[in-house]
Amino acid sequence: MPSDKSPRGSLGKTLEDARRDAGFQTLSTRLAYSNPWTALREDIIVHPNGKQGLYGIVERGEFVVILPMHADGRITLIRQFRYPVGERLWELPMGMWETKEDVDPIELALGELREETGLRAGEMIHVGSMYQGAGYSNQKGHVFLARNLTRGETELESTEEDITCHDMTLEAFEALIRDGDLKCMVSLAAFALIRAKGLI
Amino acid sequence: MPSDKSPRGSLGKTLEDARRDAGFQTLSTRLAYSNPWTALREDIIVHPNGKQGLYGIVERGEFVVILPMHADGRITLIRQFRYPVGERLWELPMGMWETKEDVDPIELALGELREETGLRAGEMIHVGSMYQGAGYSNQKGHVFLARNLTRGETELESTEEDITCHDMTLEAFEALIRDGDLKCMVSLAAFALIRAKGLI
Repeated sequence: MPSDKSPRGSLGKTLEDARRDAGFQTLSTRLAYSNPWTALREDIIVHPNGKQGLYGIVERGEFVVILPMHADGRITLIRQFRYPVGERLWELPMGMWETKEDVDPIELALGELREETGLRAGEMIHVGSMYQGAGYSNQKGHVFLARNLTRGETELESTEEDITCHDMTLEAFEALIRDGDLKCMVSLAAFALIRAKGLI
Repeated sequence: MPSDKSPRGSLGKTLEDARRDAGFQTLSTRLAYSNPWTALREDIIVHPNGKQGLYGIVERGEFVVILPMHADGRITLIRQFRYPVGERLWELPMGMWETKEDVDPIELALGELREETGLRAGEMIHVGSMYQGAGYSNQKGHVFLARNLTRGETELESTEEDITCHDMTLEAFEALIRDGDLKCMVSLAAFALIRAKGLI
């Protein structure tokens, strides 16, 4: 799990420095819960206006989400059952590094794509980064576009065995969104970022 | 907080039914943590392949995110400091109903838009719904497009006092995304949904 002992923010400041510079004061912090994937830290803070309050922060490791684009213009989506919401969702391949820290996001993206879809990417473009839910979580995601694809075997973890892969045109993908059938926020956001960059 | 005692899924099934139909078995569930906004439930489950495991689920109430579109084609974004990530982010107005349950998302959207931006919407279009992070959370978001806008005073909560509002063209908004300056996944996803529907 990421620790907020002294991580560096985007401006080279520590998280602590950034908060102080914005007028926030952290009076105390305690780890209220943790499992191998998710921790919950509870801070007692003073807001810039002087008011004291509790801030619960969901701490999770960085993740990657990949849009795999084939030479014929088709893309590969997956479907999987998501236990927290009780639905089988359409998604782009994605994953979070659970065991190692300081892993290169590109390595993670190559690995997750291969494991979930069997696709090997000759080109993995880092499109940008985003925060999953900055109001309550520190989790950061990296968006990738994968190209020069070749297909091999999937390497699903035992808990991912229900994942199915589906190749479709960009038009079919956009129809899924338009019809309300693609409900995964991560996939929607990744698509917006890739599109804004003019990459598809 | 939402309870998973007997919520109805999108197919009219209870969450419990949907999980069982997908081959998952919930052996036990316990509330491991809660504050007024976030709870963490820890389930011991049996996967369809028979393997037993722990599933930590972050439970949060539904939220709304609103893209306010003015008659001249400009849209309104906000900036606010987000304590969990230590950065001041560009975002669309958004909010979560903290106190009431079973609130109409349109009412919530009208209220959040008014509070954060001072904008009153004559038209509030429900564009679609999405899951914040279906792999670890039950949180659902509703995307709205607000039109027929008139400007009044903001009604910021005391902890939102640092919020600033910014009108900009759609081109400027897309440039923010393209340049990597818009890092809020919720805002990116909402934009993708609204765009796919052909509403902007």
